Amino acid sequence: MTRVVTFLSDYGAGDEFVGVVHAVIARICLDARVIDLGHGVPPQDVRTGARRLARALPYAPSGVHLAVVDPGVGGPRRAVALRTRREERLLVGPDNGLLVDAAERFGGVEEAVEISDSPWRLEPVSATFHGRDIFAPVAAELALGEPLADGGEPLDPSTLVRLEPLVPRADGDALVAHVAEVDGFGNLVLDALPADFYPASLTSVRAAGRPVVVGRTFGDAEPGDLVLYADAGGALALAVNGGSAASALRLSTGDEVRLES
Amino acid sequence: MTRVVTFLSDYGAGDEFVGVVHAVIARICLDARVIDLGHGVPPQDVRTGARRLARALPYAPSGVHLAVVDPGVGGPRRAVALRTRREERLLVGPDNGLLVDAAERFGGVEEAVEISDSPWRLEPVSATFHGRDIFAPVAAELALGEPLADGGEPLDPSTLVRLEPLVPRADGDALVAHVAEVDGFGNLVLDALPADFYPASLTSVRAAGRPVVVGRTFGDAEPGDLVLYADAGGALALAVNGGSAASALRLSTGDEVRLES
Amino acid sequence: MTRVVTFLSDYGAGDEFVGVVHAVIARICLDARVIDLGHGVPPQDVRTGARRLARALPYAPSGVHLAVVDPGVGGPRRAVALRTRREERLLVGPDNGLLVDAAERFGGVEEAVEISDSPWRLEPVSATFHGRDIFAPVAAELALGEPLADGGEPLDPSTLVRLEPLVPRADGDALVAHVAEVDGFGNLVLDALPADFYPASLTSVRAAGRPVVVGRTFGDAEPGDLVLYADAGGALALAVNGGSAASALRLSTGDEVRLES
Repeated sequence: MTRVVTFLSDYGAGDEFVGVVHAVIARICLDARVIDLGHGVPPQDVRTGARRLARALPYAPSGVHLAVVDPGVGGPRRAVALRTRREERLLVGPDNGLLVDAAERFGGVEEAVEISDSPWRLEPVSATFHGRDIFAPVAAELALGEPLADGGEPLDPSTLVRLEPLVPRADGDALVAHVAEVDGFGNLVLDALPADFYPASLTSVRAAGRPVVVGRTFGDAEPGDLVLYADAGGALALAVNGGSAASALRLSTGDEVRLES
Repeated sequence: MTRVVTFLSDYGAGDEFVGVVHAVIARICLDARVIDLGHGVPPQDVRTGARRLARALPYAPSGVHLAVVDPGVGGPRRAVALRTRREERLLVGPDNGLLVDAAERFGGVEEAVEISDSPWRLEPVSATFHGRDIFAPVAAELALGEPLADGGEPLDPSTLVRLEPLVPRADGDALVAHVAEVDGFGNLVLDALPADFYPASLTSVRAAGRPVVVGRTFGDAEPGDLVLYADAGGALALAVNGGSAASALRLSTGDEVRLES
Repeated sequence: MTRVVTFLSDYGAGDEFVGVVHAVIARICLDARVIDLGHGVPPQDVRTGARRLARALPYAPSGVHLAVVDPGVGGPRRAVALRTRREERLLVGPDNGLLVDAAERFGGVEEAVEISDSPWRLEPVSATFHGRDIFAPVAAELALGEPLADGGEPLDPSTLVRLEPLVPRADGDALVAHVAEVDGFGNLVLDALPADFYPASLTSVRAAGRPVVVGRTFGDAEPGDLVLYADAGGALALAVNGGSAASALRLSTGDEVRLES
């Protein structure tokens, strides 16, 4: 049986960290089919990691889902492994809010264990690379079919750390949203849904003081012009047809964007 | 039977896009052996994508070859799947010139279908992420062995979009070429072949006004000096031994390079 | 039998080079399980490549270990394949010091062959992409189980190129170390071990003229403050809790760091 392990992190492509995690998994479960869901989460940006994981997992086969964005590594934060209510997906990572939003896509958390002292960990456990020493071996043992309960101490799912949701705010007729992510094309993903603002009857709005076409895709604006659209993850987003909205508007993650009809 | 799917794009490593495409393929065809041919094509640079795909596919096992560099996503451009004359390779991507040069390496296109409304697509189809919603599921179904004709509406291969070839121009005894690509080492790949210029009897030329050794490899020039050579893809290229020709000459993609003997 | 091939290089993610190497391996040995150990070694930085390979291989399953950081490609440097004394690991790459430190982790080199004219090479061999034309096919044939001795001409392991070890120097009570690597988080890995300096009884030192907490992990310093710790590879390292030590100290690879108790 081919067993799926997905893996998302902020390790980047510059180092051997991602490769070492793959290596550890392969030593324990050589038949695992490991699918990288991306390692370009901005360093230590738990919120962006959580958004991406929650967006990606519904498209992935059921299996073990490893995610590591872990600024508190080696400190008091818990390391956890979870089983979801629907599809029995197994999520492994730090208890800092990274995993819970993704678990909600599958009915929430049915069972959870604290794995910091897991019998499956690699000794000696380093203080700064739990991806290698704790998370990878736990993910691999789960991929082998070992029971979650054997991987650590049971914990109450209601005590798992959750991120406070970000919400845009109304300001008169305008909506003040924020740049939640900048993708590799310079498209700006906002922390707002079309339902928060998207005026179906309008064909143009103003964003960040600039005229913007309301459209479905990049080409609905003239080349070089701005378009506001619902992106593939369902969020409001700003793009420039054939260019970078981040460059054109000089905006980056966390910046405010004022949308006016 | 292990089925090969290769995948090239301009999605970059910053986001989860590449991973989500892998995930979609694995859900449909878990046994597929997916080989990334690189996702660092400069954003929306169809021409560079086409060059890389054509260079890489002859080294890849026959199979399904997915490629996505797609500035017109969601607009009127067609989405296509092709079968080549030789080796029956299956290419999947946008109809914007990205695929045809690669198909020519295998005798050209024998059969083609338009897949925008493919029965295999994921509903709802987003307007901006056809890699996830159209191209990946079509590639995966083809990897399962489903017939190409079942994936979409037949189209006449002679109507496929082709890129206008770039050619260097002679200017007296000089050749005016262009930087077609800058690789990760700062080597400059030109839009010229050795046959366009390479004077077998010469051992030095001038490029961009600078003296250049004619050689086979980087070490044929002194450390820090420029060398003109035929690169591993067969094109003329400029490098600095132990350095970056892009930095030394301050040249980037599209810039002219004057070669004088 | 699933056969493992690991692969580390300085090819980066910008080009199709990594993908083409994967493609060549798959054409010869489709069942190989190829594990990327990272391709972000700084261009032509053999020493960093050697460090990463030696750190990573003990975590990887035994198999074929391909590594390419090769500034002398196409010149007189030898191309080699090695078998280690312990675990019979097979290492493939240029003979420039990249492989030997890793081999030492497995008892050193038992057998070695020069593979520049290997019968397994892809013809014509380019002058600049031996990863594709020599190293990948040799790694793939070894993954198929072909004997090392059939891959090239025997060579005396004692003639393999070795890197001169870097050592920090004492200066009175201080230790002058160097930045050996900067990781993706901006952490500075030094060319010193805790045993060289780490004063177990101390809780704070000065590094680069700045006060530094001696700790186990990032969170042992206040947010924004510096911490000196033993990293997951066993080396002394400097980090900023929640930030980048490289930015805070304006240090990069090769720079001196003065540690004072």
